[in-house]
Amino acid sequence: MGAGREDDDRSLRVIGRIRTPWTNESECPRNSRASDRLCQVEVTMAYQAGLRSLETCSHVILLYWLHQAQRDPLVFTPPFANEPHGVFATRSPNRPNPIGLAVSRLVAIDEGTLTVMHVDCIDGTPLLDIKPYFGSTDCEPNATVGWFEPYR
Amino acid sequence: MGAGREDDDRSLRVIGRIRTPWTNESECPRNSRASDRLCQVEVTMAYQAGLRSLETCSHVILLYWLHQAQRDPLVFTPPFANEPHGVFATRSPNRPNPIGLAVSRLVAIDEGTLTVMHVDCIDGTPLLDIKPYFGSTDCEPNATVGWFEPYR
Repeated sequence: MGAGREDDDRSLRVIGRIRTPWTNESECPRNSRASDRLCQVEVTMAYQAGLRSLETCSHVILLYWLHQAQRDPLVFTPPFANEPHGVFATRSPNRPNPIGLAVSRLVAIDEGTLTVMHVDCIDGTPLLDIKPYFGSTDCEPNATVGWFEPYR
Repeated sequence: MGAGREDDDRSLRVIGRIRTPWTNESECPRNSRASDRLCQVEVTMAYQAGLRSLETCSHVILLYWLHQAQRDPLVFTPPFANEPHGVFATRSPNRPNPIGLAVSRLVAIDEGTLTVMHVDCIDGTPLLDIKPYFGSTDCEPNATVGWFEPYR
């Protein structure tokens, strides 16, 4: 056993909720940049100490649990596409571990509530993590997704 | 209850393992770009169908479970820093949900094994998800992390 904790403790802790204008998947923007609506990230009191210094960050990576997703399909035909693709080649919410990811602009922090732009999940989505976005490691301007090119 | 599955099923599924040259945290690169060593992402047979079309992607976002992390600290003084910062303002592995994230270049796929560049975790790290990197939603070249500026 390593130090710190049991190796098999992979239980997720809900650290807050994401508040958005969208109450079901069909209302959600197609991706995080498809709406400029401001959304709120409410961090639970017990975790707010972890926000220290976050106010100096311009952008965050939000990880959240897509609680309405289906976890078993591995292949999926997006509504705009003509043929199936593996879920790991798509950003479908339906995947073995339905962890959503949004790169969002941090507009403001007021105590435990972040105001952010560029989120695409439904209202009430459980928050798992907040990370600062580093241009030095997270930015790949020339990245390509070949199968998606015909649908851009 | 919604369709699909129980709302409270937040159990994580290990979909593979990441193979790197680093056997403990002290050997790991400081961040994902700090090493150009090629690493392997081994996807478990049962999940390999989900890789379809991934070979057309130049970069991936890997999510993995930092199984040696400590989950309780909320404030942390990085080794290079002079004062404490909240874990959500850092990329420390130690955080309430120790989900690691790397933006990695996809060099090759051979059946269920991806060869990637720009990973910083220890050998054997459990893999949780693979997502295609979209420059249109994931790239923020002007992002800043103010507290980190003195240490760049």
